Amino acid sequence: MTTAAMLDPDTLHTRVQRFYAAQMQRLDERDIEGYAETFTDAAEFSHTPGRPPSRTRAGIIEDLRDFHHRFTDDPMQRRHWVNMIDVALAEDGSIVSTAYCLVVKVRPKQEPVFVSTVIHDVLVEIAGKLFTRSRHVSYD
Amino acid sequence: MTTAAMLDPDTLHTRVQRFYAAQMQRLDERDIEGYAETFTDAAEFSHTPGRPPSRTRAGIIEDLRDFHHRFTDDPMQRRHWVNMIDVALAEDGSIVSTAYCLVVKVRPKQEPVFVSTVIHDVLVEIAGKLFTRSRHVSYD
Amino acid sequence: MTTAAMLDPDTLHTRVQRFYAAQMQRLDERDIEGYAETFTDAAEFSHTPGRPPSRTRAGIIEDLRDFHHRFTDDPMQRRHWVNMIDVALAEDGSIVSTAYCLVVKVRPKQEPVFVSTVIHDVLVEIAGKLFTRSRHVSYD
Repeated sequence: MTTAAMLDPDTLHTRVQRFYAAQMQRLDERDIEGYAETFTDAAEFSHTPGRPPSRTRAGIIEDLRDFHHRFTDDPMQRRHWVNMIDVALAEDGSIVSTAYCLVVKVRPKQEPVFVSTVIHDVLVEIAGKLFTRSRHVSYD
Repeated sequence: MTTAAMLDPDTLHTRVQRFYAAQMQRLDERDIEGYAETFTDAAEFSHTPGRPPSRTRAGIIEDLRDFHHRFTDDPMQRRHWVNMIDVALAEDGSIVSTAYCLVVKVRPKQEPVFVSTVIHDVLVEIAGKLFTRSRHVSYD
Repeated sequence: MTTAAMLDPDTLHTRVQRFYAAQMQRLDERDIEGYAETFTDAAEFSHTPGRPPSRTRAGIIEDLRDFHHRFTDDPMQRRHWVNMIDVALAEDGSIVSTAYCLVVKVRPKQEPVFVSTVIHDVLVEIAGKLFTRSRHVSYD
């Protein structure tokens, strides 16, 4: 099996891009379970200042269901744009990824609203697939 | 010859990125003929709600000339940003690509205006080059 | 040693993406020296209309220190988003890269401000690393 540590840096970079595209498309479709599946079982996810991080897949699902609750009656489409991805391999074979994430919020007949963030991720490869082990989002 | 079906998913992803970069730079330079050449001869292109899709390269050229006619006296520069590309191979060897496309419209001395869309493409490889066989654009 | 001219176009494209991500993250952290190190020693950098291009790494550092001086008391975070990268190899082995660059400027409690530009780069590979030999930025 090819592990992340064996991949050349160019292939690894592309694989991380593919991972973010699939992961964020799930989030933006409000497929919370599908999004949580892209995290490891013991993952930590800190996405909003002042809100404690959620832990484990079940915890992430609960956290996001609660977080998205406020949008229930809000016809808002979010789009998470991730780019400018800087990837490095850590000693333990995990992947440290620092990337810009621009959140685009669109409501009918309104101009899009933007939130500029940076995501600080540790990704790991398990059985050939990438997962987020930890994510901390900082806000500009 | 290497066909899309033979490419590993990472290389295919990068090739689709390169394709969109070159294709959209042509469109944004209002090189309508050059843009149409990136579609197959029998392509279908549906880009605006309420407007019927255009078909064949000649049809796409005619459609876009008509569509751009409204911009003749408008000093607007458009930039099509495509990212978060999710690519899958279909049974018939074609490439199903779902990607975010943010259209940036810039007019002199004005703030940019943004339109958030998703492009739903089927791409095919012919003689080693990618072409759009169908494109449907949905608007957030 | 693998040189840019030996790389297949897909790998070269990814390498240029990685280069921009690392380069622009330095600039946005106001690591001016680190940013200047991504240019060749004799590089030319033209970034603002009406302002003469800076030359050599030392000249780029001096230019950017002067340019950033105006931001000293401005709590602005800039983010340079580079995408839609179109890359071609020149006869001399250098890499001609034309890419969209959207500059996002964020100030506390204000909506982000956007500047839409295109960067026209010549990159070269020296001892396996990419460097910018010349950069000219055009504004939409």
